[in-house]
Amino acid sequence: MRTWEANIRKVTPYTPGEQPNRPKMIKLNTNENPYPPAPGVRTALKDFHTDCLRLYPDPAATELVEALAAYHRVDTSQVFVGVGSDDVLAMSFMTFFNSKKPILFPEISYSFYPVWAEEFGISYQTPALASDFQIVKEDYFVENGGVIFPNPNAPTSLSLPLAEVEEIVQKNQDVVVIVDEAYVDFGADSALPLIDKYDNLLVVRTFSKSRSMAGMRIGYAIGSPILIRYLNDVKYSFNSYTMSQLTLKLGVASIQDDAYFRETIEKIIGTREHAKQVLKKMGFLFPDSKSNFLFITHPEHRAKDLFEALKEKDIYVRYFALPKIDNYLRVTIGTDAQMETFYEFLRTYKKKGK
Amino acid sequence: MRTWEANIRKVTPYTPGEQPNRPKMIKLNTNENPYPPAPGVRTALKDFHTDCLRLYPDPAATELVEALAAYHRVDTSQVFVGVGSDDVLAMSFMTFFNSKKPILFPEISYSFYPVWAEEFGISYQTPALASDFQIVKEDYFVENGGVIFPNPNAPTSLSLPLAEVEEIVQKNQDVVVIVDEAYVDFGADSALPLIDKYDNLLVVRTFSKSRSMAGMRIGYAIGSPILIRYLNDVKYSFNSYTMSQLTLKLGVASIQDDAYFRETIEKIIGTREHAKQVLKKMGFLFPDSKSNFLFITHPEHRAKDLFEALKEKDIYVRYFALPKIDNYLRVTIGTDAQMETFYEFLRTYKKKGK
Repeated sequence: MRTWEANIRKVTPYTPGEQPNRPKMIKLNTNENPYPPAPGVRTALKDFHTDCLRLYPDPAATELVEALAAYHRVDTSQVFVGVGSDDVLAMSFMTFFNSKKPILFPEISYSFYPVWAEEFGISYQTPALASDFQIVKEDYFVENGGVIFPNPNAPTSLSLPLAEVEEIVQKNQDVVVIVDEAYVDFGADSALPLIDKYDNLLVVRTFSKSRSMAGMRIGYAIGSPILIRYLNDVKYSFNSYTMSQLTLKLGVASIQDDAYFRETIEKIIGTREHAKQVLKKMGFLFPDSKSNFLFITHPEHRAKDLFEALKEKDIYVRYFALPKIDNYLRVTIGTDAQMETFYEFLRTYKKKGK
Repeated sequence: MRTWEANIRKVTPYTPGEQPNRPKMIKLNTNENPYPPAPGVRTALKDFHTDCLRLYPDPAATELVEALAAYHRVDTSQVFVGVGSDDVLAMSFMTFFNSKKPILFPEISYSFYPVWAEEFGISYQTPALASDFQIVKEDYFVENGGVIFPNPNAPTSLSLPLAEVEEIVQKNQDVVVIVDEAYVDFGADSALPLIDKYDNLLVVRTFSKSRSMAGMRIGYAIGSPILIRYLNDVKYSFNSYTMSQLTLKLGVASIQDDAYFRETIEKIIGTREHAKQVLKKMGFLFPDSKSNFLFITHPEHRAKDLFEALKEKDIYVRYFALPKIDNYLRVTIGTDAQMETFYEFLRTYKKKGK
């Protein structure tokens, strides 16, 4: 080892998930939206003059912050934006989780939480889920250095009703509580109605799922002005200019087309509810998803075998080789046509299995 | 103070510089390029289909990394990319500067270095420049936890010859040495020829100045594969998907148009050398800039007054109310036409002053 290596921040190398991108593949593995972004996004791109790129973007991302504030009917001082919700969450861990007490997040949850905790040297505890994969709210009523959980949770797809989310926030007013609402638009209760009541509550959102803009990297957080100010202080001391000019323009265009947004979500929810019926008939079991994916298991098939068999047919779903969930597959809701191909495969696979 | 505020990471709030953007203003205050990005960037934007944005970008930013590696004739394992060089530098501070010994950077230098040091709790010492604003290389031959300096330095505009940069690296092989080459394309020696010799040397670059793409947020670093791997480990544990699909496409397009790049730089250097003559005749004094800006002072005018007078005419330059440099102005090299307007103002101002 070289001498200089002694001063390196050591992390467990994190490998991002597979992102294959072949024209004919059916990609149901990273919870992307099967529909394109709003038509206004295309127009905004066409209208953009690359000559402007010679100038720095607005560091305060004013136009996007204003669009989000208007959309959610909050003040601009209550909105923070970042390079995807991962950036927002990383900044939040850095800003808010500096207690000596462990932070709490569910044992089965977003795989990045322990990664950030380790990167920043934050101790953590991970309460187990109930046997039906529900978050047990009482597990979060203990002394801690902060709380974070997704609602709906991933990869389980289950959501907590607002009253239970509020109980968790209410019992934790001495720390910051983050509700990660990446999937909330697909039918779960949002914690946004609580932000004026609890100044320690941060709600995090993304453009990657419901807004079909994973490729653009836009996330945001809404909370009390004091919380957002602390977050911005840390962010401006890290990188003042995170949002490119194009990100700002295309982000605003997405927010402005609410009709398209609602229509897309309705389509995905429709496909999801139909998928529940089809898969149930085939003998699959799954929690009652309020997100854009299903977390499925089958008494007669090994998840890993099914995953491999699907992959051979260029149908990608997500398999986690992790305790308690290694017989489940996380399947993103695609278009009706993509889902039909998936069902058709399952029907054949089932026959072959018998 | 609320109880939860005890766990907040406290930073001195950093306020990004003014970024006014009015059509007729002459903006010589943030070292932007007066010329538009390469024509290929416009084509890449036009050819981009927003429908693709529903998918995540390639987390490894392969196409941009490959384009940069080919351009600089290094291996792809030697290239790291980020959201502007500020992102690259922030990640580098996090990754490499974790010694208990202070890191070293010049007293007069990029204003963000102390901000990152404070954000990450890194102790630092700031050797003074010589009276002619040169970096005194011997000041960096002492025990330390890491070294960083810009070459050319900002806002002084002066550069160190390669031999002196090498001496600093050579005397500091037990720590990581970062050479911040944001302005190197305008005529200074790059440290890139040294990277195969010193595995502790990181060279940082940006698309914001010489490539006219400040609005797009692209920076990169080149160093030994081991250094880049450590940097990527920390980056992937922070935010796996930092570079948007558009950033990748437009970045590659810029790299591919080398003729336009060289032509633009030649124009700016030509304007800069002419500016030196004009300003000298007016009695201005300045270090011999190898960057895209001049750092000027005048024996008969207070810099602050001149700054205010220029601002009234919608000509923006940069004034730093800091010890040792508070009678200087940092003036970005604009187009010839913009510079003529600037000179014309100075001629009138001079007359008025007498």
